[in-house]
Amino acid sequence: MDYDGQRAAHLLRTIRKQKPLIHHITNMVVMNDTANITLAIGALPVMAHAIEEVEEMVSLAGSLVLNIGTLTPEQIEAMLRAGKRANERNIPVVLDPVGAGATHLRTQSALRLLSELSVSVVRGNASEVGALIGVAGETRGVESIAVSGDREEVARRASQQLGCTVAITGARDIIANGEHLARVDNGHPLLGTITGSGCMATSLVGAFLAVESDTQFATTTALVAMGLAGELAAPKASGPGTFRSHLLDAVAVLDSETLIQGQKVSFV
Amino acid sequence: MDYDGQRAAHLLRTIRKQKPLIHHITNMVVMNDTANITLAIGALPVMAHAIEEVEEMVSLAGSLVLNIGTLTPEQIEAMLRAGKRANERNIPVVLDPVGAGATHLRTQSALRLLSELSVSVVRGNASEVGALIGVAGETRGVESIAVSGDREEVARRASQQLGCTVAITGARDIIANGEHLARVDNGHPLLGTITGSGCMATSLVGAFLAVESDTQFATTTALVAMGLAGELAAPKASGPGTFRSHLLDAVAVLDSETLIQGQKVSFV
Amino acid sequence: MDYDGQRAAHLLRTIRKQKPLIHHITNMVVMNDTANITLAIGALPVMAHAIEEVEEMVSLAGSLVLNIGTLTPEQIEAMLRAGKRANERNIPVVLDPVGAGATHLRTQSALRLLSELSVSVVRGNASEVGALIGVAGETRGVESIAVSGDREEVARRASQQLGCTVAITGARDIIANGEHLARVDNGHPLLGTITGSGCMATSLVGAFLAVESDTQFATTTALVAMGLAGELAAPKASGPGTFRSHLLDAVAVLDSETLIQGQKVSFV
Repeated sequence: MDYDGQRAAHLLRTIRKQKPLIHHITNMVVMNDTANITLAIGALPVMAHAIEEVEEMVSLAGSLVLNIGTLTPEQIEAMLRAGKRANERNIPVVLDPVGAGATHLRTQSALRLLSELSVSVVRGNASEVGALIGVAGETRGVESIAVSGDREEVARRASQQLGCTVAITGARDIIANGEHLARVDNGHPLLGTITGSGCMATSLVGAFLAVESDTQFATTTALVAMGLAGELAAPKASGPGTFRSHLLDAVAVLDSETLIQGQKVSFV
Repeated sequence: MDYDGQRAAHLLRTIRKQKPLIHHITNMVVMNDTANITLAIGALPVMAHAIEEVEEMVSLAGSLVLNIGTLTPEQIEAMLRAGKRANERNIPVVLDPVGAGATHLRTQSALRLLSELSVSVVRGNASEVGALIGVAGETRGVESIAVSGDREEVARRASQQLGCTVAITGARDIIANGEHLARVDNGHPLLGTITGSGCMATSLVGAFLAVESDTQFATTTALVAMGLAGELAAPKASGPGTFRSHLLDAVAVLDSETLIQGQKVSFV
Repeated sequence: MDYDGQRAAHLLRTIRKQKPLIHHITNMVVMNDTANITLAIGALPVMAHAIEEVEEMVSLAGSLVLNIGTLTPEQIEAMLRAGKRANERNIPVVLDPVGAGATHLRTQSALRLLSELSVSVVRGNASEVGALIGVAGETRGVESIAVSGDREEVARRASQQLGCTVAITGARDIIANGEHLARVDNGHPLLGTITGSGCMATSLVGAFLAVESDTQFATTTALVAMGLAGELAAPKASGPGTFRSHLLDAVAVLDSETLIQGQKVSFV
């Protein structure tokens, strides 16, 4: 099977044409970056977390992005309310289980969201995803399970156990949907030097999910877009600060041609 | 009537000389950008939202900026307390009704602030301002009421109904004070590609209000400054990320000459 | 006594090798910048403030950074819990008393943290530090106590009274440890034009404290690193926006040679 670049390019054009609203209930560290990358890809971000409004807000949205990076119990309640409404309306939900495995609050909250909601996609690093299915990880980084074979196995098992598409991102991104596995080799080491590049990738997943019901294809394409933007931004950057600026620029100018020619997707 | 560029330039110099404290109770998405643009224009930002300190903090301030972009009921309480103290001390209050019209919580909270406080200036986009006076808008963007005549009419009616200066920003900014209408044609399309350019404009309104009691002139000048900064930054940018950096630079170097020569203000 | 540049360079290499986790309970305005500068120096940031997880999270950390820039009473509770656990585990604690002196909530909260916790380092501006020991300051800036002699005296008295290393930063940074005083003359005026440069310095103090038990040396070296990064970034910047990007780049590329050759430390 080959990755369909034309279809990917069509999705990107659809986002820019339809400008779907992406409702984020997300962390405070990268809220600005995730809003800006959502705009850059062509969608419209809204960050709203008050329990009193999340159900109404998500009803207007094309997808819901849940990110537990600076979670509190109140925020998890808001995520559950928004998520249930999203499920009722068939609005896709993406979960970024930031720091799962680091504390019980994070692991348990992510599991509760996965148990009470129908989540379309989970995107995390290997240790976060591993924590969701009881695979021991390393809190500071993902070295303990970072070998290629293991990461793919963790993604596949997580996808089967959680019943959704699971993306483990890193130097190589793995996108598992049941038995099916895609690999994305786009990207640049500078993506690892700024905070929130994973969260930004999750926002892009939200944008593509808003226009494509094939969750694995939408997720794969979002990660191709993120990786390509990193590749395009890197030569213009002299470090993480300038890279962060150029990354947004690169997402904004990303076009069909670049997506089709630049994608490095393979299937297992 | 002509716009008095000399007077505008004097205001800018006064901000830089007096360095008024601008107390923000604002949203988490753009808090960093609004703080930085406040510094760049020459004022001093402080972000403080705890109910226990907002009254004391606002007493030290030259103006109060209220922005409901990531509101909660607790935050609205803090805004009311700070606003009432500001009113007692004749400290001007600016309101940015982010997302009014999108959810009931936002619309009702904005209306409550306007009803319980004496607000000097409201700055929003057309749909947000329209929502405050019962004009139907479009949640995702302002297309439904974005025709020139309508926007001016919405601004005028809102100003009369709310009893304050009302600015609707967009490609053309409209600043209404009762029957009087000013138009600002400064700006650049890149301003629409980053999150928070409206919120940043509101912070500049706060800075100019701190040194000028003519609310329409202060607001108009703030929007000229914002638009000019966008015009100066755009040629140096290759997209939204680099534009955001250059925008702050442009605000910081904005001088009397640029303000006087570059302003595109007209009166109706 | 001369400043030991070789030892400083060794610390920097140690941070990059060990990648200590720096647990921040910090303000919302600069959370992104403080996370990114922590990454840039070579450590790993985590921002976590939920009462339910702070004790578990800090147990994994090399140091704890407490910053009251957007404090609430709930957040102070979380800081106390995390701080007590940090004290039990001999994990160093840095306090940034943002806005102490401006409101009672800030002054009292900072004093409560200092009274209930064993804090290794306090870093603030002159008026903030002065407020902690009853020296009258100026809320908007530190002009009233900004004369060189006074600032050194305030730092020394604060260090003795609070029983920890105290850093007052500004054009010249003063680092007091009891009677011992270090001065750092690295830096650039552009550092004063962006929000959060003080908070970022505090994060660097956190990173160096994680690998060095001599609190005055760790703090001095962190401030040298911050000042040098400012010096390196300034020529590449055209204002505060581009400076902010280049500052992160400069921290990321800071090396032993630059640290040793560029340091401007003197002892009194």
